[in-house]
Amino acid sequence: MRPLRDTIPFDEALARTLAAAMPIDRTERVALAAAHGRVLAETISAAADVPPFDRAAMDGFAVRAEDTLGATADTPRALHVVDTIYTGHAPTRAVGAGQCAEIATGAPLPPGADAVVMVEDTDRADGSPQRSAVQVMKAVRAGQNVGPRGADIRRGDSLLGAGDHLTASRIGACAAVGRADVDVYAQPIVAIASTGGEIVAPGQALGPAQIYDINRFTLSAVTSMHGGVPRVLPSIPDDLAALRSMLLDLVAAADVVVFSGGSSVGDRDLVLDAVRAAGDVLFHGIAIKPGKPTALARVQGTPVLAMPGNPTSCLSNAYLLLVPMLRKIARLPPQRPRSISLPLASRIVSSAGRHQFYTVKVVNGAVVPAFKSSGDITSMSHADGYIEVPAHTDVVEAGQRVDVKLF
Amino acid sequence: MRPLRDTIPFDEALARTLAAAMPIDRTERVALAAAHGRVLAETISAAADVPPFDRAAMDGFAVRAEDTLGATADTPRALHVVDTIYTGHAPTRAVGAGQCAEIATGAPLPPGADAVVMVEDTDRADGSPQRSAVQVMKAVRAGQNVGPRGADIRRGDSLLGAGDHLTASRIGACAAVGRADVDVYAQPIVAIASTGGEIVAPGQALGPAQIYDINRFTLSAVTSMHGGVPRVLPSIPDDLAALRSMLLDLVAAADVVVFSGGSSVGDRDLVLDAVRAAGDVLFHGIAIKPGKPTALARVQGTPVLAMPGNPTSCLSNAYLLLVPMLRKIARLPPQRPRSISLPLASRIVSSAGRHQFYTVKVVNGAVVPAFKSSGDITSMSHADGYIEVPAHTDVVEAGQRVDVKLF
Repeated sequence: MRPLRDTIPFDEALARTLAAAMPIDRTERVALAAAHGRVLAETISAAADVPPFDRAAMDGFAVRAEDTLGATADTPRALHVVDTIYTGHAPTRAVGAGQCAEIATGAPLPPGADAVVMVEDTDRADGSPQRSAVQVMKAVRAGQNVGPRGADIRRGDSLLGAGDHLTASRIGACAAVGRADVDVYAQPIVAIASTGGEIVAPGQALGPAQIYDINRFTLSAVTSMHGGVPRVLPSIPDDLAALRSMLLDLVAAADVVVFSGGSSVGDRDLVLDAVRAAGDVLFHGIAIKPGKPTALARVQGTPVLAMPGNPTSCLSNAYLLLVPMLRKIARLPPQRPRSISLPLASRIVSSAGRHQFYTVKVVNGAVVPAFKSSGDITSMSHADGYIEVPAHTDVVEAGQRVDVKLF
Repeated sequence: MRPLRDTIPFDEALARTLAAAMPIDRTERVALAAAHGRVLAETISAAADVPPFDRAAMDGFAVRAEDTLGATADTPRALHVVDTIYTGHAPTRAVGAGQCAEIATGAPLPPGADAVVMVEDTDRADGSPQRSAVQVMKAVRAGQNVGPRGADIRRGDSLLGAGDHLTASRIGACAAVGRADVDVYAQPIVAIASTGGEIVAPGQALGPAQIYDINRFTLSAVTSMHGGVPRVLPSIPDDLAALRSMLLDLVAAADVVVFSGGSSVGDRDLVLDAVRAAGDVLFHGIAIKPGKPTALARVQGTPVLAMPGNPTSCLSNAYLLLVPMLRKIARLPPQRPRSISLPLASRIVSSAGRHQFYTVKVVNGAVVPAFKSSGDITSMSHADGYIEVPAHTDVVEAGQRVDVKLF
């Protein structure tokens, strides 16, 4: 066994982790319906005006504004209805003086008309032949209730550029200019390898000294949630040469490799030995709790994170290190965790001498400790978030307000 | 054309929308690796203790705590190393007085030992035969650095229950108790029907009076983001009997039906006529801008939302009404929009007399209007969020602080 004595502060570990991550350059073309949440890899510009014609912004009557001058409920202006214009149909008749055309929202304005009177501001007899006349009860100015050609998007406008995150409304903007598919950056592939002689996949029976593997599931979930594609490895070789060879295959096929387990100091810590043999270790050991025995390396240019096997340590560092790294590679905006300030329900003693990420629950408006041990997944699954306790703080008293970063 | 005169306040529209939505009862069994983000439909309890044995919480040496009494760096205690215990292997030799066993984190404690000394607190000669002895430089108490059997989860414990949202850590808890698959609630199916004679799918050429369909994409994106499964209908019939018959098929197959377009007051507003013929209209018209001509109905027990065809009106109401409804049906926790308080860069005049959801950008720490018109998708795609301007407020002055709800 080799002791782990040299640790670096968390901020330094995060800085090295981000420095090792390069934004992805691979792109792919996807259907617009599948592009939501992806990151655009091209400029989206308009080949034509949107809308491509002056259109009614309201249901009502297309008029010449001057014909409505002075119109009120008490002094309505009567206009002759010469046409009905539905959406999708080009108007064929012009509107002359004293005339108007019934028009639906989104339909093209007929020649001669320059405004629309809302249907709510008109009165029309139901029966024929009076139905050919409408009483306008409100004056409109030229352009009123009209969506002019190009008002939304002008031909030649650049709407979106490479790096833009495709939210629902931006997907809508791509549709508006007629794009059925778009170039986006590929989603980073994250190879996930749970190691450890004790772990068994859920669904199988446990032998003596065995426990179920948790980390492949939590790491996959975090990866999917932050723009990556998890690739879980079914098994990990148990000798150095085979592991090193597998690692070289992995870094060629994945954008990030994450091991869990095997990053501590046991004689059988093959993962770190294989990483050392194949690449450069950028750090090994962080002055935090949980998650101290974590290593970062670069192998053939690909970042390799070696996480602790303890499920709470592994998931905590997945949030603290893997998420920022992955979002940088995926070109997603940094995550902004939601935090709330609440009083602590009971004192916390933190004598580890390391910066602590302490999981907590929120119960009746107060913060209650949820941390049990790094090996206990319930430290996380029963928690709502975490508070940070600096290395030099040994005690946080009950009643003190703390910032809870919510998961 | 029929004028839209009776509107209800937004809060009332939201209340009726939520009242029309029933949490889904269908369940399905999914692999644990695919269950992230889903809602659990069963109780997860532990069939055995986790961990199933006392285990080392640190790499080091399993000892009898009494043998380390008084050990310091200056007065180390020498112990005889009788075994090496790797993870996954059941120890075969007991630790007697003056003895210890080298042990890896996660390995079972051998009989006789009751504590673990961290490797960092020991010193061991590298060469043989001295390697059979280790110097312990720190005393430990019984139980120290040991994860006792059942400390994480006790046999019979209920870990999670129906309705729990499966976050990464809860997926981990399911794995910890050996679950390879879980029962979850089905994701609501949302039938999406864009109507309007003017709309054409992106990728095709526009004819005169035509524009590209936006709403099918924005509605699908919002649906996927909030736990639903979008089912976009390729085309909508143009006569009342056929539309009514299609609607009856849709409500039988979907958990929500969303129309866009055809909810206004034109003669050809077949959607509302079909809905009226098949079910009950719960409201038609909301005193908001954008999004006034929106209707809600219930047909054969299934909620049917008829959204405006204007893309900003449609997407705005998707956020304001469809999202809360969908999350209730999907049994997801209510969305808590992130909001920030910032000064307004320029005055906003809002004379609509309706409660306004006004889209804005954040530029250099100030709030800049982004709203153009309800028909313009760039009102949304160029915005970072929205502010609310109450119906009775006509002007919001520059410099005033406003709450921006971020998209």
